[in-house]
Amino acid sequence: MNKVIETILDHRSIRTFTKQQLTKEQIHLIVQSAQQASTSSYVMAYSIIGITDERIKEQLANISGQPYVKDNGHLFVFCADLHRIHQLASPEEKTAIEESLETTEQFMVAIIDTALAAQNACLAAESIGLGVCYIGSLRNDINRVNKILNLPPYVIPLFGLAVGYPNEQPEKKPRLPFDLVYHENEYNNQSIYQSLQNFDKELNHYYHNRSSNVRNDTWSDQMMRKYKKLERLDVTGFVKDKNFNKR
Amino acid sequence: MNKVIETILDHRSIRTFTKQQLTKEQIHLIVQSAQQASTSSYVMAYSIIGITDERIKEQLANISGQPYVKDNGHLFVFCADLHRIHQLASPEEKTAIEESLETTEQFMVAIIDTALAAQNACLAAESIGLGVCYIGSLRNDINRVNKILNLPPYVIPLFGLAVGYPNEQPEKKPRLPFDLVYHENEYNNQSIYQSLQNFDKELNHYYHNRSSNVRNDTWSDQMMRKYKKLERLDVTGFVKDKNFNKR
Repeated sequence: MNKVIETILDHRSIRTFTKQQLTKEQIHLIVQSAQQASTSSYVMAYSIIGITDERIKEQLANISGQPYVKDNGHLFVFCADLHRIHQLASPEEKTAIEESLETTEQFMVAIIDTALAAQNACLAAESIGLGVCYIGSLRNDINRVNKILNLPPYVIPLFGLAVGYPNEQPEKKPRLPFDLVYHENEYNNQSIYQSLQNFDKELNHYYHNRSSNVRNDTWSDQMMRKYKKLERLDVTGFVKDKNFNKR
Repeated sequence: MNKVIETILDHRSIRTFTKQQLTKEQIHLIVQSAQQASTSSYVMAYSIIGITDERIKEQLANISGQPYVKDNGHLFVFCADLHRIHQLASPEEKTAIEESLETTEQFMVAIIDTALAAQNACLAAESIGLGVCYIGSLRNDINRVNKILNLPPYVIPLFGLAVGYPNEQPEKKPRLPFDLVYHENEYNNQSIYQSLQNFDKELNHYYHNRSSNVRNDTWSDQMMRKYKKLERLDVTGFVKDKNFNKR
């Protein structure tokens, strides 16, 4: 077990940070780490917005509903970005380039590129003693986030990343059983239900025995509660308005 | 600079591997590392298929057009997976759950979850002396990959990951200028074109001076060549056929 794998396996999301702010050097190192991730066909289809303005942080925290969007050592917003490429096209090239940029394939490429970069950023941060929490809840009002950050066409905010010095040490949360996630040569559709029942028992035990927020819950119940609510339906139209996923 | 950041910053894609295969323990450690990544609302919306059958590797290599899809130490295929959650729904819940699973929002969630896991897998592999290469070219024929791996509804293959002992040591490829990727408080739409022209010069210098595949090229030219071709248009319909991104 080396330091990299230790850092990876020790991950837990941190939602309470001290007031200490990241230094410029730390921010630079985290972004530089993000940039070194693999990228599809060298497209590097992302931008990272660092939020230092307290009023903007407050607005984003209101959208998210999470206090740690405001109270952290630094807040990043990761955006899928094909705008740079669109800017490169000459007037004669524009139509062909746009048709290509607006496919579902390129939407996927931009999301994957952005997420790979973000995960590098997380591990870089965690390796220097910082904690992180992804913030998908910025998509509670993706149109407003878009306006606040003044994002041009072909740029969409995917998620935030709160980073800072941990002021809590939560337990590690269990993951799905290995055999349910890792398949050999083809998808193994057998015994999913049985495996999930076993996982539900394990997770229920975890929830009963953890040091805070003790509750009676299972993964199945959580997932059914979550997915019974139709949420963020405006994301579909927003994405298309920004010229992604249109064809 | 610690070992994690060193590993991250030292990344380069490896496309030539020795014949040595990964051990079961290495595969387990890589998958376990993938699983410890952050996940949106605890959904863990991915599956990983390890390919050991030489005939399947050959078929996938043909789709990809890349020899290293066959010649590597191990091949993973990372799939976005909401199938498990769909399986959990009772007959009465199915309609509501399906409506929710089939939104663009959940398509994004599944892609992000899968990519975060994959990047953990990469870094875990690289930390133990292995090289990696993402294989987006499996999407050259995503329908066939889907059939070969026998993927159920709500599961789509996003990309492969070839892993193995490096048999080459390519130079690190430059990344976009920091200031073009990192913005403060809002998107900085100024001087993109000028920055990219500078980057083009830097990259052209890199291509002229690298130890193999010397060529005359820039990022702008590459991107325009790439995006002038409309490719993988079948991905759009495929994704919807698998019940993703439908509403």
